[in-house]
Amino acid sequence: METIKIFGHKVPDTDSTCSAIAYAKLKNELGIKATAHVLGEINNETKFVLKHFNVETPELLEEVGEGEKVILVDHNEAKQSIEGREKCEILEVIDHHRVSDFHTTLPLYFRSEPVGCTCTIVAKMYMENKVEIKKDIAGILLSAILSDTLMYKSPISTEEDKKIGSMLEKIAEINHETYGREMIEAGSKFNVMTEKEILEIDAKTFEIEGIEIRIGQLIALDIGKIMERKDKLIIEMEKVCEENKYNLFVLVMTDIMKNGSEVIIVGKDKSIGEKSFSIPKNENSKFMDGVVSRKKQVVPLIYDSFK
Amino acid sequence: METIKIFGHKVPDTDSTCSAIAYAKLKNELGIKATAHVLGEINNETKFVLKHFNVETPELLEEVGEGEKVILVDHNEAKQSIEGREKCEILEVIDHHRVSDFHTTLPLYFRSEPVGCTCTIVAKMYMENKVEIKKDIAGILLSAILSDTLMYKSPISTEEDKKIGSMLEKIAEINHETYGREMIEAGSKFNVMTEKEILEIDAKTFEIEGIEIRIGQLIALDIGKIMERKDKLIIEMEKVCEENKYNLFVLVMTDIMKNGSEVIIVGKDKSIGEKSFSIPKNENSKFMDGVVSRKKQVVPLIYDSFK
Repeated sequence: METIKIFGHKVPDTDSTCSAIAYAKLKNELGIKATAHVLGEINNETKFVLKHFNVETPELLEEVGEGEKVILVDHNEAKQSIEGREKCEILEVIDHHRVSDFHTTLPLYFRSEPVGCTCTIVAKMYMENKVEIKKDIAGILLSAILSDTLMYKSPISTEEDKKIGSMLEKIAEINHETYGREMIEAGSKFNVMTEKEILEIDAKTFEIEGIEIRIGQLIALDIGKIMERKDKLIIEMEKVCEENKYNLFVLVMTDIMKNGSEVIIVGKDKSIGEKSFSIPKNENSKFMDGVVSRKKQVVPLIYDSFK
Repeated sequence: METIKIFGHKVPDTDSTCSAIAYAKLKNELGIKATAHVLGEINNETKFVLKHFNVETPELLEEVGEGEKVILVDHNEAKQSIEGREKCEILEVIDHHRVSDFHTTLPLYFRSEPVGCTCTIVAKMYMENKVEIKKDIAGILLSAILSDTLMYKSPISTEEDKKIGSMLEKIAEINHETYGREMIEAGSKFNVMTEKEILEIDAKTFEIEGIEIRIGQLIALDIGKIMERKDKLIIEMEKVCEENKYNLFVLVMTDIMKNGSEVIIVGKDKSIGEKSFSIPKNENSKFMDGVVSRKKQVVPLIYDSFK
């Protein structure tokens, strides 16, 4: 039996990494050979999570070949996926994002639910298949939920995330408040990172009507410190745009305490960002109260500006 | 609370119609207001099914307006869906086809499984939600399964279709063999239909790399009688291509007894059909042994010819 490769999106975050690990484990428990992979180096938050629960980092995967069998978790859009994807056979997709730029020739198992985190769905699949969730798996699943839902405070968080999260919390034997803050702090040690590294913590490329838009997000309990480096970040964003031919780079710096984000826009199509976020022409950033979700708030605002 | 409109694909077949009816009923049982619709007149097979189980025909829906909330069953591709779809909010998709030409701005509940019939998934959703399946609903769900899987003989049929089908058979109190044959015969009364009507029994439009391909399918226990009208069908297919600017029209006439299909190709891009089905240049049809599924056999063959 051929081994199925399971992976999340490029620039892996905690959900992409942990959902791949947990889903591969579930498949193996069900007698289907599967391995978890990441498409790039994992970030500090994810490193903290895997270390905390003593779970191995998945193997790096850079490309897939002709006819390989894969399962995508936490993404479906081609731009966010692996190189060579068009050549492989996608058996399943487990996701919680909008559906876009996704195409298959054959029917497949495609499960996307409007919940806060892919790991919420993976936890449900353990239960549907009556497979026990062990302590380490419960821990990484819960970590991803806390990360994606900003400890249930993001508008993408649902009752189901909370319900599943609370069940996992008991198995993992942690307190989600204390642990969640520790995890977010581990992920926002910006002082030891270069601007380039900061921009790569969590960034995705979206293609809207042929326009390539890069949207990065940083999350911190308090963004005060990183705000002091705004000018340097802008210079680096300009460089990244140039090198990668992005039309627009949007950096969303989310402040958990303030429940909002500083949104910075850079690029030759900066005007799209101005229109999307009502930023005046002569400015390049704005603090947006209540905006904390790339998926449910930032992306739709950009999308609407195309209408 | 706004009522959600639920509908299947254009040129409704038994699965599109019955999955919409059954899923709307499930939603209502769960306290969510929903109505079932069809996007065109139902065919003779579906008429037989609804009459047999004394279920009302869903209301015709020709267009959806700005911001209306909808659920798509048994399809996801835009070409096969309702007019104005880009303006409405798609809350859910319940399907068993390939995913293609589908796009949303927001996350949604998208559930597609590689089973033989959408009604198999809908039956599972009744069970997952612990809602009793009444005799009439069991009857129409089973009818759709028997229709889509050609009484479990098609390569698209899975163990799950059979398992769910057998459970429904008990509730509906019918014998699937006897009933299935009766249903298929009711749907293949071609002698009382014009060529135009025959071509519209079950036809879908696919767009592959900008090329519009119409694929129609007829199913009969024995296609001997309808084969006598092949020349007239070809003339009508040419007319339909001209009127609708289809590049290619593929008619799949499936013979259940012979377990194969006569495939007819017409249109200015007939060469794509020749390549797909290895039909010589000077011919316009071929009997293909073992080919009975549009989705799993015919569409992939056409798709491969583009590679």
